[in-house]
Amino acid sequence: METVLQSSSRTVVIGPDRPFCVIGERINPTGRKKFQAELQNGDLSRIEGDVAQQIAGGADMLDVNVGDPLADEVELMRQAIPLVQGLTDVPLVIDSSVIEALEAGLGAYRGKALVNSVTGEDERLEAILPIVARHGAAVIGLANDDEIPMEPQRRLEVAKKIVSAAGDHGIGPEDVVIDPLAMPVGAEPRAVTLFLETVRLIREELGVNMTCGASNTSFGLPGRETLGASFLAIAASHGLTSAIMDARSQEIVEAVRASDFLLGHDEWGASWIAAYRKKQAAAAA
Amino acid sequence: METVLQSSSRTVVIGPDRPFCVIGERINPTGRKKFQAELQNGDLSRIEGDVAQQIAGGADMLDVNVGDPLADEVELMRQAIPLVQGLTDVPLVIDSSVIEALEAGLGAYRGKALVNSVTGEDERLEAILPIVARHGAAVIGLANDDEIPMEPQRRLEVAKKIVSAAGDHGIGPEDVVIDPLAMPVGAEPRAVTLFLETVRLIREELGVNMTCGASNTSFGLPGRETLGASFLAIAASHGLTSAIMDARSQEIVEAVRASDFLLGHDEWGASWIAAYRKKQAAAAA
Repeated sequence: METVLQSSSRTVVIGPDRPFCVIGERINPTGRKKFQAELQNGDLSRIEGDVAQQIAGGADMLDVNVGDPLADEVELMRQAIPLVQGLTDVPLVIDSSVIEALEAGLGAYRGKALVNSVTGEDERLEAILPIVARHGAAVIGLANDDEIPMEPQRRLEVAKKIVSAAGDHGIGPEDVVIDPLAMPVGAEPRAVTLFLETVRLIREELGVNMTCGASNTSFGLPGRETLGASFLAIAASHGLTSAIMDARSQEIVEAVRASDFLLGHDEWGASWIAAYRKKQAAAAA
Repeated sequence: METVLQSSSRTVVIGPDRPFCVIGERINPTGRKKFQAELQNGDLSRIEGDVAQQIAGGADMLDVNVGDPLADEVELMRQAIPLVQGLTDVPLVIDSSVIEALEAGLGAYRGKALVNSVTGEDERLEAILPIVARHGAAVIGLANDDEIPMEPQRRLEVAKKIVSAAGDHGIGPEDVVIDPLAMPVGAEPRAVTLFLETVRLIREELGVNMTCGASNTSFGLPGRETLGASFLAIAASHGLTSAIMDARSQEIVEAVRASDFLLGHDEWGASWIAAYRKKQAAAAA
């Protein structure tokens, strides 16, 4: 199954036979005190550098989150979307827990966006899916409802419910990207094995595309980039087709591109070899 | 299933619930002209540095191959084994295509060695398995016979034949480590996907441990270490339990140790965090 996202001039296709879709996570105030303060003052200027770094790092799409409890998130999202679209032509992920902010972002967006996210509770599904459908967007469905299930089978059930509810609103399964929930392995030793089992179940029983917040896995641990690199190589090989991740990290992005090659999604390594030559040329310059 | 290898003072256990077993590949003249010339002169002095580098890099075992068509391999193996055992206490892999060299190595070895390797032809099985059995060793079985099959099902059939023949000689399946055949992805785009499918079949139908010559995958390509790192993370997550690999490469070994943590074989990351602290202390010193 393939999920098609678009800006006004570029198309990205997420799918199991495609190169992994790298979604840059950086436009997000979580853990960034300066950015939080700026958002509270209505200042979006920091985004320009974030966009440049992530595109240079190899992002295929960018996630845009401007949520801060002390800021006017709806107005910020309304401004941030055209700002980012003026800086890059990659398609965007409109990311908020505030429904009005999602709506403002979709209203300002040119193209077909990915909405981040809906969860399995009836009231969230009923509130968010009509907006997604009205704007012809795609949506990320988190495999949790009011609680976060540990059991893969339970996560699959939530995913099924979301895909089914989306269908009721005219959103096909190709436009639902399920997040199987990457959790910190430092807090739960089975976090990754449960994640991989969930990926397998969703791949086999729903066949939809999947994404996750990849940085969660290494939360609080030393050597985060190496853990993230191995995690994404492993996850891609089990069927994860995209991730919201640190696109600034050469180590993590290269692990993803190596996996593309190894898994047969970069035949004869054309992209791999081109990227290597470019890197060498840059190092020599 | 667990494969137990021993030196005179150290035991290593390979198994699906254990940390991945890193077998250093460096004591091997392939592609090393100086080492080849030295072996032809009966000079084994280069081995000392090879041992030190690989143990420092994190090898759990070392492969010993002193084969050169112009050298007296049998005599070299007879000398190399006690030489290496005097330098390190990790268990060894005795690696030769010459049956007399395997026999000389086993005769000189103290402990329970891993023999590399036997293939599926009747005459090789009949020649090598009795020697392995007589010395109470374990053996690597390559999933090929007089030809190298591409189809995973054919590789499984060869693996089954080897495990069965080993049983006829009193070698239990726990002492047969199957090599599912890692081939260059630069020469065959399906090399890794076929490898992973073979790993799955062998895991499900035989349940034995597996190893491979991991460097083959990236043969002839740029960015070999990154490809090797992603390959091993992926392979471990599908059931490969050890590899003969470049233990001198920090990038590759760290990918393996990250995978151990992610896959639940390094609970709470105790080894991961200890290695990180050691690395930081070394950098600060």
